[in-house]
Amino acid sequence: MESDDGEVVSNKQVIFKDYVPGILQESDMYITNSTIKLKVPSDTKAVLVKNLYLSCDPYMRIRMRSLQGSYFAPFNPGSPITGRGVAKVVDSSHPDFKKGDLVYGMTGWEEYSLIAATESLFKIHDKDVPLSYYLGILGMPGLTAYAGFYEICSPKKGEYVFVSAASGAVGQLVGQFAKLLGCYVVGSAGSKDKVDLLKNKFGFDDAFNYKEEPDLNAALRRYFPEGIDIYFENVGGKMLDAVLLNMRVHGRISVCGMISQYNLEQPEGVHNLMLLVMKRIRMEGFMVADYTHLYSKYLEMVLPLIKEEKIVYVEDTAQGIESGPSALIGLFAGRNIGKQVVAVASE
Amino acid sequence: MESDDGEVVSNKQVIFKDYVPGILQESDMYITNSTIKLKVPSDTKAVLVKNLYLSCDPYMRIRMRSLQGSYFAPFNPGSPITGRGVAKVVDSSHPDFKKGDLVYGMTGWEEYSLIAATESLFKIHDKDVPLSYYLGILGMPGLTAYAGFYEICSPKKGEYVFVSAASGAVGQLVGQFAKLLGCYVVGSAGSKDKVDLLKNKFGFDDAFNYKEEPDLNAALRRYFPEGIDIYFENVGGKMLDAVLLNMRVHGRISVCGMISQYNLEQPEGVHNLMLLVMKRIRMEGFMVADYTHLYSKYLEMVLPLIKEEKIVYVEDTAQGIESGPSALIGLFAGRNIGKQVVAVASE
Repeated sequence: MESDDGEVVSNKQVIFKDYVPGILQESDMYITNSTIKLKVPSDTKAVLVKNLYLSCDPYMRIRMRSLQGSYFAPFNPGSPITGRGVAKVVDSSHPDFKKGDLVYGMTGWEEYSLIAATESLFKIHDKDVPLSYYLGILGMPGLTAYAGFYEICSPKKGEYVFVSAASGAVGQLVGQFAKLLGCYVVGSAGSKDKVDLLKNKFGFDDAFNYKEEPDLNAALRRYFPEGIDIYFENVGGKMLDAVLLNMRVHGRISVCGMISQYNLEQPEGVHNLMLLVMKRIRMEGFMVADYTHLYSKYLEMVLPLIKEEKIVYVEDTAQGIESGPSALIGLFAGRNIGKQVVAVASE
Repeated sequence: MESDDGEVVSNKQVIFKDYVPGILQESDMYITNSTIKLKVPSDTKAVLVKNLYLSCDPYMRIRMRSLQGSYFAPFNPGSPITGRGVAKVVDSSHPDFKKGDLVYGMTGWEEYSLIAATESLFKIHDKDVPLSYYLGILGMPGLTAYAGFYEICSPKKGEYVFVSAASGAVGQLVGQFAKLLGCYVVGSAGSKDKVDLLKNKFGFDDAFNYKEEPDLNAALRRYFPEGIDIYFENVGGKMLDAVLLNMRVHGRISVCGMISQYNLEQPEGVHNLMLLVMKRIRMEGFMVADYTHLYSKYLEMVLPLIKEEKIVYVEDTAQGIESGPSALIGLFAGRNIGKQVVAVASE
């Protein structure tokens, strides 16, 4: 009786419990066993997918706060977490998608998702790269690095570029883009392994472990005796204050995120903003959502670079949907090395 | 015997005592009686001037700190304060200036100054405006308002503009420029008289006394229910934090100064910078020194506006060089109403 109408299968989900003002913990999420019929209901225009990879991204932490007027709609307590994923279409009543298509876009943290908001779904055409790349270098973090660096930083060959959270999903790409342009690039990260990665795998000119620098200002002075032209800001707080002290005149700071602040009830104060005046610095926040029109141009640039191995991309893959909460939390402790994804199922 | 070589006259000076990390006080300066020969020494290419008006500007406070690597060279303890002034040439060995010329530029806080660094001196040609205007609307503060508003803020007709320290030397002009462009303009200031001035003399759409607003965020929400497109930042600290909460998407903040911070040993922390990302805000510091090439264009625009009374300018004039220290200190307590000048002598 279920053969035509879709099999009913079990569907593990990661449920978001409730808003968290302070430090996010695994217990703020839980795994539940639900069921789902593998067929789009007849009265709905939607796509039913099997999730293959889920993305852990810092902005998701912001959706776990009850922020009024935030750009990111807060998650619904009691519902599965939502985020970007790579998935395979199981059933579809939408003309643009058919069974067997590989797609990426907004999905749920569960084994199968019924996606009605199909406007965020893209069909994957180029399959000779790892599928999970569509959550990283070929997806939102890649376009974030591209737009944030080329559009916001106005970079020029020979300039001094500093990237924080430099081994992360976005940072590793910003550093490599800057190197390809002929900039001098230094990155900061939170462990020796990550620093090694920056120097030896991503080709940064230098890198340091910020946890081993009691005086960030002194560290930056050491790595940038001439000062910093471009700061790609991923962390905020004390690092931003130290960077401001080391910026050059007419420097640019592109503000991508401030991950050091997301688990704080009250963000740290930044004290050195008067240096924006003294050094005539432009500091600009941006969101990748404003740059989707550049996506195909970005793919044209980056796909050949990947295939020619002129750009590499490092991922940290957690296995199984049950590992999702721990993987997400790990972002804010810096446990991930490279882009954090969760492998839910194989094709 | 002195007739050919220049009379020796008494020359009152305002001496800067020593660097001040905290609150600047009158006792950090003192008046001394010196003498000066009213002739440029024969081996020097310089201009000897009688100072008519001296300018009190917030940036001078920064020169009273021993800041390493600051854009502004610190003052020399034990020497007269230096700053912009309007003066009359008494003697000159420089071909561009002759006795009787009226000039403005960098001079000393004293009755007569021997100026060797003549590159900062400009000859005053248009004399049918008050001479003191060359320290305000026709000088550095005027060009600051012009460049900071038109070049940094990218203003458009109909946008919502907020100006802090709005009755000050720069703020009163920014508000008037914004009104001329067709923006909706609200200003903040620190007294009822200033608020009246903003609304009734400068034509701001609205204005408020920040000292009477226990919750700046609520105040801004009241005056800008639709949010702020452009913030012309003159004060820093808590006001900046409140403004960030009220900015619109793709807003712009031009950072001209942060006068609320100059008397603090440690600047206040600004906590809401993550909103730069959420709202994709561009925040840019600038200094008028980068825009001197626009000065003649600015004069072409502003001189007719002054003469047609489409722009007004309010000054606060302290009488006599002895009043200099108190006038300068008054800036940081907000005692001045309009541009603070010190009238030293008449022509």
